[in-house]
Amino acid sequence: MPTRRQCANAIRVLSIDAIEQAQSGHPGAPLGMADMAEALWRHMLKHNPANPAWVDRDRFVLSNGHASMLLYAALHLTGYDLSVEDITHFRQWNSRTPGHPERGVCPGVEMTTGPLGQGIASAVGMALAERLLAARFNTQRHTVVDHRTYVFCGDGCLMEGISHEACALAGVWKLGKLIALYDANGISIDGAIDAWCNEDVGARFAAYHWQVIGPVDGHNAAALDEALARARADASRPSLIICRTHIGFNSPKVDSAACHGAPLGKKAVAETRKALGWEHAPFVIPDDVYAAWDARSTGRNAESAWNTAFEAYRQEHPELAVEFLRRQRGDLPVNWPDIVQTLLQDVQDARESVATRTASRHVLDHLTSCLPELIGGSADLTGSVCTFAQGSENFNAETYTGNHISYGVREFGMSAVMNGLALHGAFIPYAGTFLSFADQAKNALRLAALMGIRVVWVLTHDSIGVGEDGPTHQPIEQLAMLRATPNFLLWRPCDALETAVAWKCAMESRAKPVCLALSRQKVPFFERTAAQVEAVARGGYVLRECDGIPPDLLLLATGSEVHLAVRAAEKLAESGCRARIVSMPCAELFDAQDSAYRESVLPTRVRARLAVEAAAPDYWRKYVGLDGTVVGMPHFGASAPAKDLYARFGLTVDNLVAEALRLLNT
Amino acid sequence: MPTRRQCANAIRVLSIDAIEQAQSGHPGAPLGMADMAEALWRHMLKHNPANPAWVDRDRFVLSNGHASMLLYAALHLTGYDLSVEDITHFRQWNSRTPGHPERGVCPGVEMTTGPLGQGIASAVGMALAERLLAARFNTQRHTVVDHRTYVFCGDGCLMEGISHEACALAGVWKLGKLIALYDANGISIDGAIDAWCNEDVGARFAAYHWQVIGPVDGHNAAALDEALARARADASRPSLIICRTHIGFNSPKVDSAACHGAPLGKKAVAETRKALGWEHAPFVIPDDVYAAWDARSTGRNAESAWNTAFEAYRQEHPELAVEFLRRQRGDLPVNWPDIVQTLLQDVQDARESVATRTASRHVLDHLTSCLPELIGGSADLTGSVCTFAQGSENFNAETYTGNHISYGVREFGMSAVMNGLALHGAFIPYAGTFLSFADQAKNALRLAALMGIRVVWVLTHDSIGVGEDGPTHQPIEQLAMLRATPNFLLWRPCDALETAVAWKCAMESRAKPVCLALSRQKVPFFERTAAQVEAVARGGYVLRECDGIPPDLLLLATGSEVHLAVRAAEKLAESGCRARIVSMPCAELFDAQDSAYRESVLPTRVRARLAVEAAAPDYWRKYVGLDGTVVGMPHFGASAPAKDLYARFGLTVDNLVAEALRLLNT
Repeated sequence: MPTRRQCANAIRVLSIDAIEQAQSGHPGAPLGMADMAEALWRHMLKHNPANPAWVDRDRFVLSNGHASMLLYAALHLTGYDLSVEDITHFRQWNSRTPGHPERGVCPGVEMTTGPLGQGIASAVGMALAERLLAARFNTQRHTVVDHRTYVFCGDGCLMEGISHEACALAGVWKLGKLIALYDANGISIDGAIDAWCNEDVGARFAAYHWQVIGPVDGHNAAALDEALARARADASRPSLIICRTHIGFNSPKVDSAACHGAPLGKKAVAETRKALGWEHAPFVIPDDVYAAWDARSTGRNAESAWNTAFEAYRQEHPELAVEFLRRQRGDLPVNWPDIVQTLLQDVQDARESVATRTASRHVLDHLTSCLPELIGGSADLTGSVCTFAQGSENFNAETYTGNHISYGVREFGMSAVMNGLALHGAFIPYAGTFLSFADQAKNALRLAALMGIRVVWVLTHDSIGVGEDGPTHQPIEQLAMLRATPNFLLWRPCDALETAVAWKCAMESRAKPVCLALSRQKVPFFERTAAQVEAVARGGYVLRECDGIPPDLLLLATGSEVHLAVRAAEKLAESGCRARIVSMPCAELFDAQDSAYRESVLPTRVRARLAVEAAAPDYWRKYVGLDGTVVGMPHFGASAPAKDLYARFGLTVDNLVAEALRLLNT
Repeated sequence: MPTRRQCANAIRVLSIDAIEQAQSGHPGAPLGMADMAEALWRHMLKHNPANPAWVDRDRFVLSNGHASMLLYAALHLTGYDLSVEDITHFRQWNSRTPGHPERGVCPGVEMTTGPLGQGIASAVGMALAERLLAARFNTQRHTVVDHRTYVFCGDGCLMEGISHEACALAGVWKLGKLIALYDANGISIDGAIDAWCNEDVGARFAAYHWQVIGPVDGHNAAALDEALARARADASRPSLIICRTHIGFNSPKVDSAACHGAPLGKKAVAETRKALGWEHAPFVIPDDVYAAWDARSTGRNAESAWNTAFEAYRQEHPELAVEFLRRQRGDLPVNWPDIVQTLLQDVQDARESVATRTASRHVLDHLTSCLPELIGGSADLTGSVCTFAQGSENFNAETYTGNHISYGVREFGMSAVMNGLALHGAFIPYAGTFLSFADQAKNALRLAALMGIRVVWVLTHDSIGVGEDGPTHQPIEQLAMLRATPNFLLWRPCDALETAVAWKCAMESRAKPVCLALSRQKVPFFERTAAQVEAVARGGYVLRECDGIPPDLLLLATGSEVHLAVRAAEKLAESGCRARIVSMPCAELFDAQDSAYRESVLPTRVRARLAVEAAAPDYWRKYVGLDGTVVGMPHFGASAPAKDLYARFGLTVDNLVAEALRLLNT
């Protein structure tokens, strides 16, 4: 039977061997955190290597994602479908072991990490999901939801501002089943951190109402066991275990930034092996070490016991069980088509001319009561962003009931928590802030896109229509920023109907996050044929056709500028100019249509093209080409009533008409 | 003589009157913080209303910028060039009193605020600037730099993650002359904050090694005086004064979110007036209150005394005095043209084929020794982003010497601190992180652009050239995001010479921040004629002309893809296709050239156009039009060696040749 240190050393040597083979990677952290991983993964973690999707598994998040080899080694050693060959392909094209852990690429990786701090922030969302789900589905006699969320994080994670936002929330939400192990090695890339980070991390987390444990010796198995036991014993406070470790443990570069982000080198690898007392060849783990790590049997038993318990639950609560499984699968309710049909019909019947943020709330009035998996919220702008609907109830951290969360003024933390809720499963998170503050959340939106998860951002006040609050609150470049983000759908609907279709798309978009850019100001409702209603989901369509094909002019618009375009076309028609109005609420979806459809909307031969959007104009060059024009906002906004701003900045019917005529006469 | 409360009430009524007149604004905070403002502005602040640019003034930052009317009222009452008429135009087109305070629009406004938390973060930069400048210029007998930085901030500011990043830095930097007054009113837009923010703010700031004072009664003048005196007495720790206040003080909506962001309404305004005992008409301030507030005489005396002291300094240290004034004006050294000429000549002589990040460091080897106003740094990536040059010395928080700061893993906080350094004056901040992490800093970059200040971001690892670290670390949409930001210059140089010109431009760009997107990987050096060297500063130019005009094809490229384009053109020439290579390191500058120049580079009649950039492709549609093609990255990257990624994703000479031929044959 190998010692616990020997088991930990298996992680260490696999890590440095893989990094040496790749000639790329971060050896310091896996060497430093291996004992922490041994304590957690061999003795505490509830998981089944044969089924990484088991719904009641503990979640593990490696927030300091550059330590990826530690996670890959743990997954390999405990029996996941991750072979030694996979590990030897570390950081190579198409391997299952990329440089930073990536969800969907490697079995057992709960989320993509690398941007520091986001792991612990999304872990807060996972831990919240567990509590919400437990409150919803557990019964007096049956516990089907009962798992913990563990995080490894480093100094870098805790320096990042997002750690403040998310960990403050974990405290106020009393997430007792969230346990973070902080790898306090005192070294970051620039060296010993004292010169730029001397905060008392324990006192800080105590101020958030966490249980703070330690510092403990992060290389002492018994101390780690005891700390983990204490952490698990506190049901009402998240726990931070401060683990003092040595980065690059037992390597010649121990306690130095030199081992952080570069391979140790052949000689230092050999010396480290020697210091660890490890005599095996690269990538060779002795059988007894494999046996000591093997979690397949206990994992199978754990899941099997849960299956039995769930079977009893299903007997007693058949409807709850069906609902539980549906939500875990991420399927929408079976009557989803009816829900959508009713919703769209209601919107068309109501013909309401309202701000699209208001239209969005009307949609949510429908959805929040039909979709219990929806968990809404806002970054302290609930009234403004219209996320609280008829079926909404404020979240309560005593009972874990409610479906609308006030996240406070924490756009980035909120967004990472939303990602965590979605990653956990059984929830579709949506939440809002102003579009200009998508900036603060940007990297969490990006990570959602990279992970391919269903999250909905409700970003209102989407232009100079903000008015008096001025340029700090008026988005300009944000639409371009989000449209340029891969695997991300940005909707900017022009009226209540397009808003409803955008929500439908968002609910059905299982592998792409969605952002709704919504107006503060009122917009008119447009009548549509059934075919046009159908076409909205294609992302771009002919909203108003002109007499005669081909049109003289294509007039493209989105959101609150569509009605300006429509009125401009009417004026142009008076002078005999035939302008087709193309509404383009989701350009990414339009681009994904087949070429015949795209050609039918934007005929190649029509080169007189004018686009209007109250935002940075360059994106629209894609559709108007070198011969077209864009009326937009190539500069910042200003503080004044919205109608004044539209007039002053030339976002007017008259200016569109003038630009159109200029185009046609050149 | 009016009472102190009466003086404070002048702020209150001006605020609610202006908001009522505008029918837009945030009355709650000015009503709540008026006594704090009275204590600070009437009794502590060193400033001269006649000269808002006096270099030794105390800095005041209203971090909770929605309380703008409080600041406008204080500026008006103390005697700045801000009339009652200006105040009645609150939030109107072209007024000097926009919805949130804007630098350059209203005299006495040190920085643009509104995005919560950034004010206090940039104030940290201002306070740091003061200490650095004092260390550089004060002498044993002469003190020419000696001022404080005061901040008002609210619950929202302190919930934001950036407050964690920046305030932790203020603690480790021992910025004793930074004093933050925290308006702890317990209310944010969603209501009483307890449900989403219950942290012990005092304990948190103590963990950062701040002096924490209070809670004090934020409506008690004597208590505020005492707290401010204690704050000023501690020279080695920044101070947080926790002021318990009532939002909407003395209005019928006191202590409720209802008074946060909407006018009180006529009736409530009348009731508030009554409760305040204020009997004057709207916008009327009695003479005795004006007299009590008037800071013009003390301000003039204060500056005059400083001028006298500076004159004595100048006598004793004429060279220091000249240098001090030069730096305050923001002028580059008189020998700047020589510095640039030497730099560019050296680069051309060296002909080094190096990564542009390395080329950037070589430029900094020149600049850091010639420009003492440069203050560099990185977000814990100093070696990788190459910001530490021959003339660099690590910042030391005991002596306030050094010109390179390790900011820790805090991209957003770093960027806001850089803004603060620039706003203070006498510094040109530059600092680096990876381009993908520009996401985290985004809103600070935006604010720099909005304020029009000289700040330089060195954003390296600017493409899939990152290689093994994978998609979390590989920027895709970030170039589009920054190019779409108004008043912002993004450079992506292709070699050492373009890198040097980019730095020249950055140093000379007094009213636009600059971002340098730099490669991790080596790129070849291109030979250029003198005219081409000259043309680089135009942002786009013909790098390689083909035989015969017009060219068959325009091949546009930036950065590390330029050499692929050049080689593709060589191959194309072999098959008789004449491709002109346009290097476009700074598209914004190219767009600003006159149309004749633009036409000379990109002739309208040549429609076969191919652009290549290892980033989101849509931006380039602007130059290639409907008939051109872009070879780019319309999806996320992957983890593998960089050369594999370039090959797998089609960023190759062969693919460019194939796309070019396809274009020419259709």
